[in-house]
Amino acid sequence: MVRSNGRNNDQLRTMNITTNVNKYAEGSVYIEMGDTKILCTATVDEKVPPFLKGQGKGWVTAEYSMLPRATHSRNQREANRGKLTGRTMEIQRLIGRALRSVVNLHALGERTITLDCDVIQADGGTRTTSITGSFVALCIAVNKIAQQHKLPVFPITDYLASVSVGVVGGRTLLDLNYEEDSKAKVDMNLVMTGSGQFVELQGTGEESPFSRQELDSLLQIGEQGIRDIITYQQEVLGPIALLIGSGTVGKGV
Amino acid sequence: MVRSNGRNNDQLRTMNITTNVNKYAEGSVYIEMGDTKILCTATVDEKVPPFLKGQGKGWVTAEYSMLPRATHSRNQREANRGKLTGRTMEIQRLIGRALRSVVNLHALGERTITLDCDVIQADGGTRTTSITGSFVALCIAVNKIAQQHKLPVFPITDYLASVSVGVVGGRTLLDLNYEEDSKAKVDMNLVMTGSGQFVELQGTGEESPFSRQELDSLLQIGEQGIRDIITYQQEVLGPIALLIGSGTVGKGV
Amino acid sequence: MVRSNGRNNDQLRTMNITTNVNKYAEGSVYIEMGDTKILCTATVDEKVPPFLKGQGKGWVTAEYSMLPRATHSRNQREANRGKLTGRTMEIQRLIGRALRSVVNLHALGERTITLDCDVIQADGGTRTTSITGSFVALCIAVNKIAQQHKLPVFPITDYLASVSVGVVGGRTLLDLNYEEDSKAKVDMNLVMTGSGQFVELQGTGEESPFSRQELDSLLQIGEQGIRDIITYQQEVLGPIALLIGSGTVGKGV
Amino acid sequence: MVRSNGRNNDQLRTMNITTNVNKYAEGSVYIEMGDTKILCTATVDEKVPPFLKGQGKGWVTAEYSMLPRATHSRNQREANRGKLTGRTMEIQRLIGRALRSVVNLHALGERTITLDCDVIQADGGTRTTSITGSFVALCIAVNKIAQQHKLPVFPITDYLASVSVGVVGGRTLLDLNYEEDSKAKVDMNLVMTGSGQFVELQGTGEESPFSRQELDSLLQIGEQGIRDIITYQQEVLGPIALLIGSGTVGKGV
Amino acid sequence: MVRSNGRNNDQLRTMNITTNVNKYAEGSVYIEMGDTKILCTATVDEKVPPFLKGQGKGWVTAEYSMLPRATHSRNQREANRGKLTGRTMEIQRLIGRALRSVVNLHALGERTITLDCDVIQADGGTRTTSITGSFVALCIAVNKIAQQHKLPVFPITDYLASVSVGVVGGRTLLDLNYEEDSKAKVDMNLVMTGSGQFVELQGTGEESPFSRQELDSLLQIGEQGIRDIITYQQEVLGPIALLIGSGTVGKGV
Amino acid sequence: MVRSNGRNNDQLRTMNITTNVNKYAEGSVYIEMGDTKILCTATVDEKVPPFLKGQGKGWVTAEYSMLPRATHSRNQREANRGKLTGRTMEIQRLIGRALRSVVNLHALGERTITLDCDVIQADGGTRTTSITGSFVALCIAVNKIAQQHKLPVFPITDYLASVSVGVVGGRTLLDLNYEEDSKAKVDMNLVMTGSGQFVELQGTGEESPFSRQELDSLLQIGEQGIRDIITYQQEVLGPIALLIGSGTVGKGV
Repeated sequence: MVRSNGRNNDQLRTMNITTNVNKYAEGSVYIEMGDTKILCTATVDEKVPPFLKGQGKGWVTAEYSMLPRATHSRNQREANRGKLTGRTMEIQRLIGRALRSVVNLHALGERTITLDCDVIQADGGTRTTSITGSFVALCIAVNKIAQQHKLPVFPITDYLASVSVGVVGGRTLLDLNYEEDSKAKVDMNLVMTGSGQFVELQGTGEESPFSRQELDSLLQIGEQGIRDIITYQQEVLGPIALLIGSGTVGKGV
Repeated sequence: MVRSNGRNNDQLRTMNITTNVNKYAEGSVYIEMGDTKILCTATVDEKVPPFLKGQGKGWVTAEYSMLPRATHSRNQREANRGKLTGRTMEIQRLIGRALRSVVNLHALGERTITLDCDVIQADGGTRTTSITGSFVALCIAVNKIAQQHKLPVFPITDYLASVSVGVVGGRTLLDLNYEEDSKAKVDMNLVMTGSGQFVELQGTGEESPFSRQELDSLLQIGEQGIRDIITYQQEVLGPIALLIGSGTVGKGV
Repeated sequence: MVRSNGRNNDQLRTMNITTNVNKYAEGSVYIEMGDTKILCTATVDEKVPPFLKGQGKGWVTAEYSMLPRATHSRNQREANRGKLTGRTMEIQRLIGRALRSVVNLHALGERTITLDCDVIQADGGTRTTSITGSFVALCIAVNKIAQQHKLPVFPITDYLASVSVGVVGGRTLLDLNYEEDSKAKVDMNLVMTGSGQFVELQGTGEESPFSRQELDSLLQIGEQGIRDIITYQQEVLGPIALLIGSGTVGKGV
Repeated sequence: MVRSNGRNNDQLRTMNITTNVNKYAEGSVYIEMGDTKILCTATVDEKVPPFLKGQGKGWVTAEYSMLPRATHSRNQREANRGKLTGRTMEIQRLIGRALRSVVNLHALGERTITLDCDVIQADGGTRTTSITGSFVALCIAVNKIAQQHKLPVFPITDYLASVSVGVVGGRTLLDLNYEEDSKAKVDMNLVMTGSGQFVELQGTGEESPFSRQELDSLLQIGEQGIRDIITYQQEVLGPIALLIGSGTVGKGV
Repeated sequence: MVRSNGRNNDQLRTMNITTNVNKYAEGSVYIEMGDTKILCTATVDEKVPPFLKGQGKGWVTAEYSMLPRATHSRNQREANRGKLTGRTMEIQRLIGRALRSVVNLHALGERTITLDCDVIQADGGTRTTSITGSFVALCIAVNKIAQQHKLPVFPITDYLASVSVGVVGGRTLLDLNYEEDSKAKVDMNLVMTGSGQFVELQGTGEESPFSRQELDSLLQIGEQGIRDIITYQQEVLGPIALLIGSGTVGKGV
Repeated sequence: MVRSNGRNNDQLRTMNITTNVNKYAEGSVYIEMGDTKILCTATVDEKVPPFLKGQGKGWVTAEYSMLPRATHSRNQREANRGKLTGRTMEIQRLIGRALRSVVNLHALGERTITLDCDVIQADGGTRTTSITGSFVALCIAVNKIAQQHKLPVFPITDYLASVSVGVVGGRTLLDLNYEEDSKAKVDMNLVMTGSGQFVELQGTGEESPFSRQELDSLLQIGEQGIRDIITYQQEVLGPIALLIGSGTVGKGV
């Protein structure tokens, strides 16, 4: 049995990352994962939030938003509702938390990097794709800081990528699109590092609970997907890739 | 090495559930998990939200809040800030989603049950304790509906409980209190059913990523904790416990 | 003719005050007045609001909230509405104003004490019960400050209690429960000191205006109720009671 | 000793009411009480709020607002703050409640009358002056309804006026201006009917509690002030005055 | 053919400006343009907004609001909606921008002048009338500053007035009232200086686009109207009028 | 003297319009005007806002937003501020009003078309570019309706485009970029139709008022720019272009 889009169960959608798409942002990436298309910009601010003042360390945070017509039917803008939905808050907290797990905040110094993930078109996996794309935008922005300020060490300590996995019609699938996601009995998002460790693991069986055996299958297929994504990130980052986790003085390339 | 509160690594805190603590609510529970104390009330409303109208099925949802002085230092009320924090939204979405996983919404009929989880005192694990307590309040409220309306089948399909596990100072611990939680390198919340399946699995390694082996240890210790909690829930529920997942006509007891 | 709950016209409901019910708050009280149950916590903050800065005096303020299912039918949370109702604002302004009338703010020093009154269950008289309970929580918190800082004089200058009175079915009643309150033609809240003076007097005759003679009867029955409440407060406060209005150096007990 | 503005202790400020000052409103009044100047408009809407639908009775409600420069220093607009202050809510609830006490809502039919009290200039007593002025605007609007619809009985059942009294420097004063009000040890607002009964009585002794004897003096001086105001209202209302409480068919004049 | 109110096509409505109508404001004006009636107050604040701090120059800004019953049917207060409408924001941005065009902000020094335009009654042209009236209130307030502080030069550099013009039923009309405005095919607001130059020009042809020839006619009739208004402003301002644009030391009159 | 970007005074920036860039929207356009880049999507909804119900006519409206890093420094999201800025409201009201001027709302039927203009990158002229791009997206969406529903007549009555003009350093320039715009003494936005008539004309001289002669020069250069833009729109629209203003039955192409 073949997936509606002709993919194998353990196959990613066509992935494409274009860098430096915005002339103002310190780092920017346009990432396409099949029909899911997201603009990720990284903004560097030479100060930190109040709760970190005077501690000699930096901060990385994220905001997430969907354009109103990123989806089948138009969504009301959150600016018009006057507040963020719970879904948006949950996603942007996840992105920020995930990125911070691979940043040496002391090496970053008293700076804040804000990742804006704006979904231009959504077809499943917008939160995982935001993490994958933001990581690249973050590396580009951090490299720019390193070039200008020469940091004690390059502050990105490992690679980071994210992908969704799920159980649909009895099959364990990698990188679900919207149609598959809406039929999934189990939906799981994985965030992992280049060294193969877990940063976040969020599995939900609202339609039906899942067994330990299903969990193991999901983790196996997801780990492979993460490795494939990280290989592509390295290619896109080029020379910057060598700085990540290198432990040498952060001068940038 | 012993935990600050004298517990073994795989030991729950002292758990206490008092039922029917509110004279108005259809179901109510006061749950204490060590020094974490939460009031859970279940309100039955004979209508459903707009998106479910006319589909012959019901809805279960939850709201979560901390009293301002539930914590070491006082928190500003969300009513004064004019909006919910991301943390609150994330937690109440989780509670609702988890409870719905063990409710047959068609058998419930066109009714909404709202679980209010108000944290009187917080000492770690407020979201997991909310789920454990809410499940009991929900069963009591559903039994009341069944007594009055005779449902086609008792709508609760399985037990549900939740607990946290974590890695602290190299040890894998069950049911972390606030002090342990704030030192944890990995923090994981489990929601599981009486039949030992996963409903939610949320693991975060912000301080440091975690390996597959650590994940396996966390799951093992957590599964045991869930079983212990469910045994206590059955005791508290008494005759109602027999109706859960029984598949017989829902007349209540 | 006997009141629905068997009380005489001038009889208080069963009153119960439990102190130190919260392990974090500087002062805390759980007060039950019949079926009205309120948690009052006092939080001490070593700074004052902007409008008082540098004046060498302190501040006492209050917040009031009802849990959603404190009442017969569930109320929407004010945090979800995004703002406080007029009723809540009116009540919390009253509580703060009343408490400040018996506090020597100069003796308190540049500190703010916030009284949180969270109604766990409501059966009439929640604002008056909040004042009565908050006063006790305030005394406990102030005593704690005095123990640590030795104040020039103990800052509580007199006792303070509050009770409702009303005209129901032609009878003048003390301490109305919800059922009586909803049938009252006149509803009056009294806040008085240990020396028998008025701090607040709020009478409303929305159903029907009331005469000077009715006013006099209401005041008489209310004054007696206040005296009974203050006697009980003294008992609950124990040795702290002796410090109130003593005029001696505030060292605490 | 003479008051700063040359008045006797029991003397009202110069009062002036101009009717029909707005060409759109069903009733409108510009009331000046010394330097306190308020525009009161009454709007008739041929429907009732949701909670009254289908009960065959009407509703009277009020809104209160101060222009930003009604006071010594400019106040931020509540529209810019995004919400009403507690003070505003408290005042507009009071105005509505007071007016409803002299309206036969069944005779009014399923209509809502909204009284807008906009303070053009404030010099003490804005809430009491709003009630006094709104009552006149309300009578004019109700007369217009009666002219058009012939009501079963004229729905205004009695006169209504309001005034403040206070204790300032040991003297009991009527109708305090801002300067007196800011020095008052006791501040009391009275709302009374033409038949000399109380509708609202709100006394506050934040600066210092007050005795029963002081209360009696305040009531005596206030009752006289109310009588003087109602005499002036009757003059202003002219023929409409005769309809109030007349019990005859409401045809208007 | 004659206009409904008997005016010629190029004739202003009856204009009346009363100065110093508020006892607190540094400048105040009550302006009537036919049945459009607006209270304009100018408040002087001895500080500037954050974005101007330390630049040695001042700021002029405006706020605009309609009383709820300024119009045929009652409008909900923006304070109750919790936010300003787009229309209000657009108008108050226009008023502030227009006034600043004739103020030498450096000569004003580090002060903010806020013009509050509160529409008491609306009959078309409220934004243009607000500008015309605010300019006079601004001059009075600036003169008061000059009297007290002796400014390097009088900071008002030219006269400023505003009027609407439109095409209604094929005729080009000056100063439209509400009835005319609601039938206009083209609606244009002009803001011009005493030297006959344009400050703002806003023409809209929502009902139907307009030609260059129509534009020329509208400008011609509008320029004449502006001249007439400025002549009246000079008369109202009396001796202050001589200071405007005089370039002499600002001592006030 | 040459413009910083090598253009003549009356020359547009490089303009590029890509159609059908979003797989869900009924009409979509990506428009680039130099470095200003905007995504315009048109959403068709088969119902109208409440104020138009039952009138047999449709509605066209617009929303405008800038991504946070569309500009040199990052802007806070309006969704986080909880409300739209005055600038955003002003712009989206303008876009909607302009588009409606060339739509026969009766021919459209009871449908709403919402144009979302999301600025991906801003370099001056975002409001004029939004209008120009939205017009094309609107035509595509209307054609889709016509194809499906066969309208009585094609509802777009004329072409519509917009451009900015300004006076910078004494020169009259067409289509200002951000750098030019920030130095402009006069800034004017024109919206015109294919038949050369004005729909909107908004000129502001905050830095300095402008003369009638300057106005005439601005209009001349702007009219030429509009003609050039419309020529390009026709090319982009291809066969749809022939339907505009054709007056024949709307069947679509």
